[in-house]
Amino acid sequence: MKIDGKSWRAIWPIGTEAAEVIDQRLLPHEFKTMRLTELNDACIAIRDMVVRGAPLIGSTAAYGLCLAANCDSSHASLKVAGEKLCATRPTAINLRWAVERMLAHLQDVLIAEIPAEAWRHAEKICEEDVKINHSIGTHGLKLIREIEQRKQGAPVNILTHCNAGWLACVDWGTATSAIYQAFDAGINIHVWVDETRPRNQGAFLTAWELGKHTVPHTVIADNAGGHLMQHGQVDMCIVGTDRTTASGDVCNKIGTYLKALAAFDNGVPFYVALPSPTIDVSVDDGLAEIPIEERSGEEVAKISGADSQGVIRSVNLLPATSATANPAFDVTPARLVTGLITERGIVKPERDALLKVFPELFAKS
Amino acid sequence: MKIDGKSWRAIWPIGTEAAEVIDQRLLPHEFKTMRLTELNDACIAIRDMVVRGAPLIGSTAAYGLCLAANCDSSHASLKVAGEKLCATRPTAINLRWAVERMLAHLQDVLIAEIPAEAWRHAEKICEEDVKINHSIGTHGLKLIREIEQRKQGAPVNILTHCNAGWLACVDWGTATSAIYQAFDAGINIHVWVDETRPRNQGAFLTAWELGKHTVPHTVIADNAGGHLMQHGQVDMCIVGTDRTTASGDVCNKIGTYLKALAAFDNGVPFYVALPSPTIDVSVDDGLAEIPIEERSGEEVAKISGADSQGVIRSVNLLPATSATANPAFDVTPARLVTGLITERGIVKPERDALLKVFPELFAKS
Repeated sequence: MKIDGKSWRAIWPIGTEAAEVIDQRLLPHEFKTMRLTELNDACIAIRDMVVRGAPLIGSTAAYGLCLAANCDSSHASLKVAGEKLCATRPTAINLRWAVERMLAHLQDVLIAEIPAEAWRHAEKICEEDVKINHSIGTHGLKLIREIEQRKQGAPVNILTHCNAGWLACVDWGTATSAIYQAFDAGINIHVWVDETRPRNQGAFLTAWELGKHTVPHTVIADNAGGHLMQHGQVDMCIVGTDRTTASGDVCNKIGTYLKALAAFDNGVPFYVALPSPTIDVSVDDGLAEIPIEERSGEEVAKISGADSQGVIRSVNLLPATSATANPAFDVTPARLVTGLITERGIVKPERDALLKVFPELFAKS
Repeated sequence: MKIDGKSWRAIWPIGTEAAEVIDQRLLPHEFKTMRLTELNDACIAIRDMVVRGAPLIGSTAAYGLCLAANCDSSHASLKVAGEKLCATRPTAINLRWAVERMLAHLQDVLIAEIPAEAWRHAEKICEEDVKINHSIGTHGLKLIREIEQRKQGAPVNILTHCNAGWLACVDWGTATSAIYQAFDAGINIHVWVDETRPRNQGAFLTAWELGKHTVPHTVIADNAGGHLMQHGQVDMCIVGTDRTTASGDVCNKIGTYLKALAAFDNGVPFYVALPSPTIDVSVDDGLAEIPIEERSGEEVAKISGADSQGVIRSVNLLPATSATANPAFDVTPARLVTGLITERGIVKPERDALLKVFPELFAKS
């Protein structure tokens, strides 16, 4: 999408020597890119959240395997590289998906040709991601258009949580794709952006990317969304997901479940935008089966921002004696989800509906 | 309650010349008191949230009238002082309650005797607050004991939101009173403390006061509570309230509603602890009738914490172009509230139940 009028992506190759990403840890205060030149760079980028968001993690892992192949393109070495990549973020289902897809594709390629083929295939994965997200947005746009008609010129208010924007993907974003397409089509939209503690991806990333594309938006504390829904100030919610189960349960950033409850309680449609690679048919009951990443309590205890001189500083928010807990995701049961916005259309969060639209995913399992 | 082994209150008179409060804006990083020597000091203390929490605001307003009476004890002047105090925080129902009670009490007192009588009556209001909160805790303690029996030695996990602790009152707190009494009685309890963005009263105040009294607690992002409830890690919620309506709707810090929804969805009892002065029988439908204070967006955009040298710094969290919204309270409908913990016992959040326990409140209206 646009940054100050110019088109950008969240990851791009530099020939077949490196991949470059936006260092998302510095946003919204500093805009800097980071060059990944070896496997370890890609692992660090994923683990330290230089890049984050399920699809972008997948793309970064794909390029990570390219960087590994540049050093040693043996199948054994690539397999080790893949394991190393998969260990960086256990919850992200399409990290493993991207790694497995790359390894499967390179399986029958001659060792000497593996590096070049790896780069080609990683780029293909990225292009597919762009195409998938564009399709998600096209389907989501129809939902926004329906609300637009009802609102008769008043803004369509969309609430989103965390960052499921183009910074989480290669381009377009998942939850934001329909928003960008609606905005580009001249629809009067306004986005409520949950700040999304503890890592503030809403405030730091979603607000930044919407602002750079000039989409009207308002940042709110995570606590505020329920109140806004009670007062008719939210027309729909669109969030992303890291993993959707066969029965339509949705694992997403911590706090998503609370917004889904509020949406349900107030009759606000709650949509989850997702590319089909994040559907994990091996899991049925998300609440019982999905392991939730417990991240460092430092993320709760400390926060970074820019001081009055623009210097980024980390400040401590807690008494020294207080313990912290930091579950990074939660599971929203399918019963609270109005629909899944996929690249093949809007799907009910139910096994039968998912099976009908994505039979190949179930056939594999 | 205790700070490093010594007993403290949140407000106390210095003879009849001044009142002193803990400057809660500096917690948890610095512990400092502030002396209020004139009416304007009391107004600033309330408006700038040097003190906050419904009961403490009431007590501070009472002492504010004492300070006004020290200068000019005419009824006309006291009335103006009362109006000035009431204008500082529109949502706090017992700010007005305390002012009206002081004025009514002083109505028939000789002008020359008003200052001394004002100080006596303000102290009486504070002592009553301590007594009320102790009673609230005694009733809440019974609920905790019931859970304790079921848990067979495992900790009783209580989630609380914002600060309804002794720092919000004169002593004991409302939501925390039962927690302190349970802890002092040797019950194995553990408190989940919502950080409570945007002003972080949970992280800054509740965690601080629980820590100083050595009560086991864990600070979590506001987003995390739903997930913890889904996984059986919360046995009960106890929150405070700024205003409870005749039908049992509860107005409290923004985000309370989301936790009540999660508690309801997971069968976790959700209790609201409140002193009867915060019951406002003039309001029935909290959602439709209670005006919600919209505070400065700066509270969302900026946060204060201690840097690595211990210096308190405010840092900016948002892109320069992002708008903010900051509703400070929300309304939890009575249907989501298990019970109201009052100084007269546990009351169902229903008009008939409230009328039965507090007939005098309804008689007045």
